[in-house]
Amino acid sequence: MTTESVTVRPAGPDDAGHIARLLHDFNTEYSEPTPPVDELAARCHELLAANEIHVLMIGEPPFGLALLRFRPSLWSNGPDTHLEELYVAPARRGGGAGRALLEASIELARANRSEHFDVTTAEADTAAIGLYESFGMVNRERGPEGPLMLYYELEI
Amino acid sequence: MTTESVTVRPAGPDDAGHIARLLHDFNTEYSEPTPPVDELAARCHELLAANEIHVLMIGEPPFGLALLRFRPSLWSNGPDTHLEELYVAPARRGGGAGRALLEASIELARANRSEHFDVTTAEADTAAIGLYESFGMVNRERGPEGPLMLYYELEI
Repeated sequence: MTTESVTVRPAGPDDAGHIARLLHDFNTEYSEPTPPVDELAARCHELLAANEIHVLMIGEPPFGLALLRFRPSLWSNGPDTHLEELYVAPARRGGGAGRALLEASIELARANRSEHFDVTTAEADTAAIGLYESFGMVNRERGPEGPLMLYYELEI
Repeated sequence: MTTESVTVRPAGPDDAGHIARLLHDFNTEYSEPTPPVDELAARCHELLAANEIHVLMIGEPPFGLALLRFRPSLWSNGPDTHLEELYVAPARRGGGAGRALLEASIELARANRSEHFDVTTAEADTAAIGLYESFGMVNRERGPEGPLMLYYELEI
C-alpha cells in the first residue's frame, strides 16, 4: 500500500529504535510523560520479538506508525484488534499517511481473522475522529442515535 | 474481600460454565448478539487455562463477575490492565457487588505490578460511571477540564 509513493510496511525487532523515537516524539508533542528513547527501544524490541505488539511503519526513515495488539476474543474464534497508537510526524501530516496506516491496520486485522477493531481517542482530536469515522468506525452504542462510548482510566 | 458477607474470589477453568452463563445473561440483557452458552464456556475454559483472561466472581453460585486482561505495557515494566467486562445480575444490584468486584480488580492489577487500569462504558450507564468515578477513574485528558476520551469500534 502506498500514499504519495510512500510504502507502509510491517516492523520487525530491528525497527525498535525507530518505533521508540516516534513514540517518544508523540508523547513529547502531547506533553505526556515518556520513558527515555533507549528504554522504550529495549521494550519495543522485546515486545516485537514476542509478538505482543504489531507495528506498521510508513516512510524511510519512518515518519509514522500504527501499533496494534491482538488478543483472543471472547466472542469469536479470531482475535480482537486494538489500535493502541497511531502517529504521523507533524511535518508529514495532511498527505494521507494516517489514512494509509489505518487502512493497512484494518487489512492486517482482517488477515488475522479479527472481527473486531477498536481505538480510543480524545474528542479534541478532530483529525483522528474524522479519519476513524471515514472508515465507518462508531462511537455510539446500538446505532447512530445511541449513547456515546467513553474511555476511563486510572493510574494505580 | 466481602460485601454483605459475600466473597469475591478468582475464577479457575472449572468456573467457565458460570462465566459463560453470566456473559450470556449480560449480552441478552443489553440486546447484544451473543454466542451460545456452550460455545462461550469452551472458549472461557481455554482462555482461563492459558491465562489470557483473569476473572473475579462474587456469590455462590456466582451472580457477578469482573473479567480482566493484562498486557505488557509500552510505558512501564508491569502490565497494563483492561477491565473488559463487569456484570452483576439485575436482582443483586445495589448491594455493593459491583464496587467489591471493581475494588478486587484494582487490587489484582496492583498485585501484578500494573500501573495503568482502564475500562470502556457508555454515557447512558450512569451506575457504572458513578462507580468508576468514585474510584478516581478519569474520562478526560490532561485534567478535569480536558477533552473527553472516546472509544471507537468497527466490526470488520
